[in-house]
Order: sequence, then C-alpha cells, then structure tokens
Amino acid sequence: MKKYCFGIDVGGTTVKCSLFLNDGTSVDKWEIKTHVEDEGKQILPDIAETVLAKIQEKGLDKGEIEGIGIGVPGPVEESGEIACAVNLHWGRKNIEKELEDMTGLRVKAGNDANVAALGEMWKGGGQGAKNLILVTLGTGVGGGIIINEKIVTGAHGAGGEIGHAPVNPEEKVPCNCGNKGCLEQYASATGIARLARKALEETDSPSALRKYPDVTAKDVFDAYKEGDELAEEVVEVFSEYIGRALAAFTCVTDPDVIVLGGGVSKAGQPLIDCVEKYYRNYAFPTCKETPIRLATLGNDAGVYGAAKLVLNK
Amino acid sequence: MKKYCFGIDVGGTTVKCSLFLNDGTSVDKWEIKTHVEDEGKQILPDIAETVLAKIQEKGLDKGEIEGIGIGVPGPVEESGEIACAVNLHWGRKNIEKELEDMTGLRVKAGNDANVAALGEMWKGGGQGAKNLILVTLGTGVGGGIIINEKIVTGAHGAGGEIGHAPVNPEEKVPCNCGNKGCLEQYASATGIARLARKALEETDSPSALRKYPDVTAKDVFDAYKEGDELAEEVVEVFSEYIGRALAAFTCVTDPDVIVLGGGVSKAGQPLIDCVEKYYRNYAFPTCKETPIRLATLGNDAGVYGAAKLVLNK
Repeated sequence: MKKYCFGIDVGGTTVKCSLFLNDGTSVDKWEIKTHVEDEGKQILPDIAETVLAKIQEKGLDKGEIEGIGIGVPGPVEESGEIACAVNLHWGRKNIEKELEDMTGLRVKAGNDANVAALGEMWKGGGQGAKNLILVTLGTGVGGGIIINEKIVTGAHGAGGEIGHAPVNPEEKVPCNCGNKGCLEQYASATGIARLARKALEETDSPSALRKYPDVTAKDVFDAYKEGDELAEEVVEVFSEYIGRALAAFTCVTDPDVIVLGGGVSKAGQPLIDCVEKYYRNYAFPTCKETPIRLATLGNDAGVYGAAKLVLNK
Repeated sequence: MKKYCFGIDVGGTTVKCSLFLNDGTSVDKWEIKTHVEDEGKQILPDIAETVLAKIQEKGLDKGEIEGIGIGVPGPVEESGEIACAVNLHWGRKNIEKELEDMTGLRVKAGNDANVAALGEMWKGGGQGAKNLILVTLGTGVGGGIIINEKIVTGAHGAGGEIGHAPVNPEEKVPCNCGNKGCLEQYASATGIARLARKALEETDSPSALRKYPDVTAKDVFDAYKEGDELAEEVVEVFSEYIGRALAAFTCVTDPDVIVLGGGVSKAGQPLIDCVEKYYRNYAFPTCKETPIRLATLGNDAGVYGAAKLVLNK
C-alpha cells in the first residue's frame, strides 16, 4: 500500500523539499541549495540524491512511495518536458523522465505557480474547492487555474499567466513581457510602489508615504491601515485593477473560490475587502458572491501542490 | 455495439434534432416546435416523442444508441439540473433524469453556448483542438470554454459567460446583465450598431452608413468591405474590444485555437484579420500566434456538440 509522497519546489536559490503522508500530513521538510551553474545540470541529480537519502534515513521502502511531485519555474508541457527555465539556466529538458531514471520513482512535474494553486486547493485557502483561481501578488503577478481539481496547463504552458492580462490600453510604459498595460504593472508589489510614486508626484497632499525615499507595497498598506488618504487612493486604484481583472477571469472559468497569495497578500483582510468591493461591482451576476480568500500556505504552497500533483495520477 | 447518438438543441422557437453515427456523420436532421406555454412542460415530452418516433422510423434498436445529448439555453449544473431557462419558461428541472425516464436512453445536458463550443471543436472551426475558446457574436455575446475536450461549466454554470467580461470601466449605459462596460455592449450585433450610431452622431464625415435609418452590424461590415472610412473606425473600435478581451481570456486557459461564431462572424475573414491585429498586440508573448478561426457549423454547432456531449462519457 502506497503511503508516502515527496513534494519538491525548485526555486532559483533553494529547492524546498517535503515528505508527506498521502493524506497531506507533513512528515519532514528541508531545503537544499539550487546549483544553477553549468546550465543547472546538477539540480535534478541533487534532488534525486536528497530524496534517496531521505528514504534511507527514514527507513522507507520504495514500494510505499507514490512518487515525486515537482514544481519548477517555467512552462511544463503535458509530456513532462520544459522548453526552458530561465532562473535555473535550463534549456529543453524532460524533467519527469530524467528524475524517474535517477530515482526509480514515478515523477510528475508542473509549473510552480500552477502547482501552488493546487496546493492552496488541497490544504490552503481554497480547501474543499474543485475549481479555483489563485492570484500570486509578488514581485510580479502569477497565477494558477484549477478546474475539476486539475491544473490548466494550456496549449503553450501559459495557462494561468494572468499577470499579463491587458487591463489598461492607455499605458505607455512597457511590462517585462513587452506588452503595455498588463495587470502585473499595477497589482504586483512593484506595481503598487509605482502607483504610489505616481500619486505622490501628482499631488501635494500630505501623506505618511512621503517619508520613504523608496516607497514599497508594504509601506502603502501600512499607511492605508492607519487611514492615510493618499495610501487609500493607491489601494483603491490597485484594487479596482485587480477586482476588474478577476471579474473577467471568473466569467471564463467560474471558480468556486478565488485565492490571493504572494507577498502583497500579507496585507490581509483589508486587501480582500477592497478587492472584493470592485470585484462585486464588475462580476457577472451569478459570480458576484464567489468568495475571495487569502492563501494560507505561504512558501509551502509549492511543496503541498507538488505532492498533490503526483497523487492526482 | 453502440453506433448512433442523438443531438438535440433546444431554442425558444424550435428544437433542432439530429441523429448521428458515433463518428459524427449526420444520418438525419429535423426540427420540432418549442412549446413554451404552461411553463414549457411539454418540451421534454415532445423531444422524447420525436426521438422514439425516429428510432422506430429508422428501425433502430435502443441497444445501438449511445444516448441523447441536449443543449438548453440556461446554466446546466454537473448533476444535469438547470436552475432556470428564461426563454423556455422553465424553473428548476432535472433535464437528464426526466428525459432518461421518458426515453430509456442515457441523457447528457449542457448549456447551449458551451455545447456549441464542443461542436465546433469536434467537427467545426476548431477541429483537431483539445482546448478552445468559442466566442459567439450574435444579438448578445456568448461563449464556451473547452479544456481537454471537456466543457468548463463552472461553479455556478457561468463558465464561458465571456460576453460579460468587463472591458470598459468608463461606460455609463448598463448592459442587460445590470453591469456596465461588458464585452457584449460592444461586440454583439446590437453593440456594433450602437458603436455605429455613436460614430455617426459624433462626426459630420460622409459615410454610406448615413443612408440607413436603423444601421445594423451587417451594414457596418458591408460598408467596411467597400472602404467606408467611418465603418472602418467602427470595426477598429469593435475589434480592439474583442481582441483585447481575447488576450485576457487566453492568459487564463491558453487554448489551441479561438473560434468566432454567431451572426456577426458572417463578416468572414476581414473580421478575423482585424480582431487578430488587436489580439496579437495585447496577447501574452507565447500566445500571440494562437490561431483565430471562423466557426463553420453555423446553426448546427448545437446538435453536433450535444451529440459529442453524450459520446464524451
């Protein structure tokens, strides 16, 4: 009887590893360094080595192990191949096959943002849902779409690339992706800081934000909670962009729940309240009550989701 | 061995019926009247009667028949129930169970717009694709989302309600759904006519469109093909709205193909060319080359999709 599974989340600096019972109970959790040098050719062997060492350390039998789920920062195709992962210095690579050959265990790979969505559905803010949209508000804006408990990968691995939904045709400054007016330009930590700088430049109104030489998203939300008027304006603009974008996404997939994660979501319930106000204004009538919740797994969403990925099939 | 299936498409005026071989070959095609009086209570019995009569007429054995797929104008839940279908005067009803009881055949029900998407994927403009977005540009704007050959129904049956994606926060006039600035307000036949009336009012420039007391979407596209400048402006505005909305939808599900159907799509390739120009401008880089094609099944998309629905499981 299979009892255990591994969840691996590969980042540009560290690889997060977890050993789970198949019901999602965490048995052990550790990290190893990501060796990106030499086109990252050591990354998968390092993972194989640490997994095999853990099996030995815990005295497990391979027959008890469902497999290894792995999330990586890049678009993973249905075949388990990745075209490239810039942060890992990888070119085309069949992650599943390589790691299976090295470990003798079944491997299932997915894009890290999509995998995080699966984790939040399984054990996080979206627990109990089968259909979910996760929006990760970090340095950039990522996301993951879950339909019937499965990740939507898409034809080019771009399923859930919702940070690049066009939300402002008037924008003059290009996004990292080359387009102009992407959601990420307003709803990321960087985007909020930019909105704040713009607001500070455009008015002379007093604001606690003026004391920061380099205002951050956290500063904006802290000032917002203190009732700072200019911070309020910034949060309203940000929330309208994201609430309106969510309204467009929900009339595509109509999820049970929307989950907001990433660093910006540390602003907590005030963030949800403000985004929800705009979401409800724009959402299709039958979707207006779709709950918007905070992600709860933080940096562990990836290992949970990776484990669920290999349990899913 | 099962060999046949029925595809039924229920509209407010007629019920379209088709008998197919399971490979999609049409064996017979007919229509009956939709009796909406008395809360439409005769609709399902009429369908059962015509299906059973056809089985007898063709000398078929029920054992040879996979079942009946049926598309209805309303949100169908996973259970086969519908909460309401305004055009059929229906309240809550379990379509699948009722029609199964009446015919002794397996029944699978779906929303008509979603079912049409499945039809276009199976035998129409999206043939060969597993992931598709259908946008139906008719009196309103409907749609259907297919992922891995399955309809995305959503938590409230609102999957594919893309006509109500918010695309213009500046809009003052309400949409039929009660919100303001929905895609349908610009990209439907009614929406295009409204854009044309607005353009005619706002300028004095000469245009062939001035001769129509009540300008229609068809008039606009006819004049566009003749090089009428004002019609060109209107088509550009319309195409920007739809191209930009498609760019947002594709970063959610990343389909293999986008299919445009409905009455407005009769404008043909010039419509595709103009929408594609804006789509490519706004789409996420890896999705820029996603093909946009014309629907090819016209009013038959519903019966094909309904048949595929019952073949799917």
